[in-house]
Amino acid sequence: MKRILTGDRTTGKLHLGHYVGSLQNRVKLQDEYDTFIILADIQALTTHFERPELLNKSIYDVAIDNLSVGLDPNKITMFLQSKVSAIAELTVFYSMLVSVNSLRHNPTIKTEAKQYGYDDLSYGFLGYPVSQTADITFCDADLVPVGDDQIPHIEQARKIARRFNDLYGKGKVIIKEPKPLLSNTPRLIGLDGNSKMGKSLGNAIYLSDAVEDVNAKIKSAATDRNRIKIKDAGNPDICTISKYHEVFNPSEYKNIYEMCRNADVGCVACKKLLAEKINCLVAPFRETRAYYEEHKSEVRDIILAGSEKANMVGNKIVEDIKRAMNIHIE
Amino acid sequence: MKRILTGDRTTGKLHLGHYVGSLQNRVKLQDEYDTFIILADIQALTTHFERPELLNKSIYDVAIDNLSVGLDPNKITMFLQSKVSAIAELTVFYSMLVSVNSLRHNPTIKTEAKQYGYDDLSYGFLGYPVSQTADITFCDADLVPVGDDQIPHIEQARKIARRFNDLYGKGKVIIKEPKPLLSNTPRLIGLDGNSKMGKSLGNAIYLSDAVEDVNAKIKSAATDRNRIKIKDAGNPDICTISKYHEVFNPSEYKNIYEMCRNADVGCVACKKLLAEKINCLVAPFRETRAYYEEHKSEVRDIILAGSEKANMVGNKIVEDIKRAMNIHIE
Repeated sequence: MKRILTGDRTTGKLHLGHYVGSLQNRVKLQDEYDTFIILADIQALTTHFERPELLNKSIYDVAIDNLSVGLDPNKITMFLQSKVSAIAELTVFYSMLVSVNSLRHNPTIKTEAKQYGYDDLSYGFLGYPVSQTADITFCDADLVPVGDDQIPHIEQARKIARRFNDLYGKGKVIIKEPKPLLSNTPRLIGLDGNSKMGKSLGNAIYLSDAVEDVNAKIKSAATDRNRIKIKDAGNPDICTISKYHEVFNPSEYKNIYEMCRNADVGCVACKKLLAEKINCLVAPFRETRAYYEEHKSEVRDIILAGSEKANMVGNKIVEDIKRAMNIHIE
Repeated sequence: MKRILTGDRTTGKLHLGHYVGSLQNRVKLQDEYDTFIILADIQALTTHFERPELLNKSIYDVAIDNLSVGLDPNKITMFLQSKVSAIAELTVFYSMLVSVNSLRHNPTIKTEAKQYGYDDLSYGFLGYPVSQTADITFCDADLVPVGDDQIPHIEQARKIARRFNDLYGKGKVIIKEPKPLLSNTPRLIGLDGNSKMGKSLGNAIYLSDAVEDVNAKIKSAATDRNRIKIKDAGNPDICTISKYHEVFNPSEYKNIYEMCRNADVGCVACKKLLAEKINCLVAPFRETRAYYEEHKSEVRDIILAGSEKANMVGNKIVEDIKRAMNIHIE
């Protein structure tokens, strides 16, 4: 089996955007690939280092979010980034192979710096692509499941691996160049209809939301503002609810779309139907979540066992790297 | 006993400048302090990552240089930086607490970047002060023996420790703020008389130089160029040999100084005397060196045992830090 590396920063609970964009795919992939899932608590620090109170809770939140949607602890290796020293060690090694300028011009760094309003980047934040390369390569991953927009990240990782191999490999591959595993996952818009669903944007339905939360959030979601009365024809192309139907209720989507256009369905009924569909999707997740919330020590044990395996794999790679760099003493 | 942290980058053999500037003092300090000596092979990479062939040899060279001058493996803890993952882990944590701008304005970074001709700094090179802070604090060092010119480094380390404690300590000290242990060690000029003695400057007498090497190097060292004939009065104030007499032959220095001024001693004799003095100083070092060159596995064992101790100390600090940052799972 080829190995994939995927995961999430532990900066808060995951939402339907994460589910549609990656978790759903992850559940399928676990049967075809040796799946490593990183709980990226150190990368969480790059933006959240001033909120230590959030960090520990988020580790469990994100772990349980992953387990709840159907990731099987007997198939996957879920590990805590900070528990795997090999990642820090590779980060330090790789940092010699990347110039400050190339990092400054990295589009993600630019965008994120703008989003978080950093005038004065932290050194760690600037090194995000380096740290990400360490995450991917420490476990010898063959593939990284990503969307189109994340291909530059993989390119950066490939570039660092190539540079390392050129410098130290003497014709051999020491660090495998990871490849992107592209998936056609839609980017889910937020409840406000204006942008993507995001935890920092206050427009998300969380995987951990209760039935009533989902109902209430859908009820107040943005629709076609020009449709005032139920007898007005709606414009589903600018309606969040319609877009959600497309994703969460695909079999009825076309029908609903036409009914909206013809004023054959009102927004209240349309929203109610969607909420039912989403609650139906999430129902088994809630059951699994309830189990793990009751058995947190099991979650801890899953993370610890995964971290131990990750350490075995990572320490082996670090030894190989040191040997290649000629700083190996034994 | 208070703990000190000192050491060298493993970029080549050490020379008399290192001896006068730090090794000599280190030998004294080992009786008063719990002395940790870092063989900084990862920091060596910041400038020497493209010369892997040099790295392994330098580790042994620098270790033996330290042992040869009288550092006692039963007193000190000599360890290899790359063997201590805690240092990499702290580097990653600290990198969140330092801004890119403050590193760019660090005088050492500016100077070194100029010296090595880097137009485009590597990310790792820019992070030198962060990595250095990790070196000092990973072992809870109380003091760092430095000259005046290195006080800014210690200040940077103190600043990072303070910031960490402010953010995560809740009034407690998690990372000890290290203090400089100032010593009055002269900076030795090079054989060319123009600048400091430096391995990259080709103007050094190495601790591992044989008697004949020392004699030959001293013989061709720069003196007062205006003193053509033996009967000309010399100017010891601009003579390298005179400056070396002051350091290596202090009891006769004043006398020789006057004799030079009065043309009572010729350069050849003056140099011969100095060479004798230096060879006399280095003679016992050569003996110890010969032993360790014959018993390299002992050197390896000293480094491995020291690294193991350093790991025990470092892993404990990393655990404390993670607990304080709230990313600790157990």
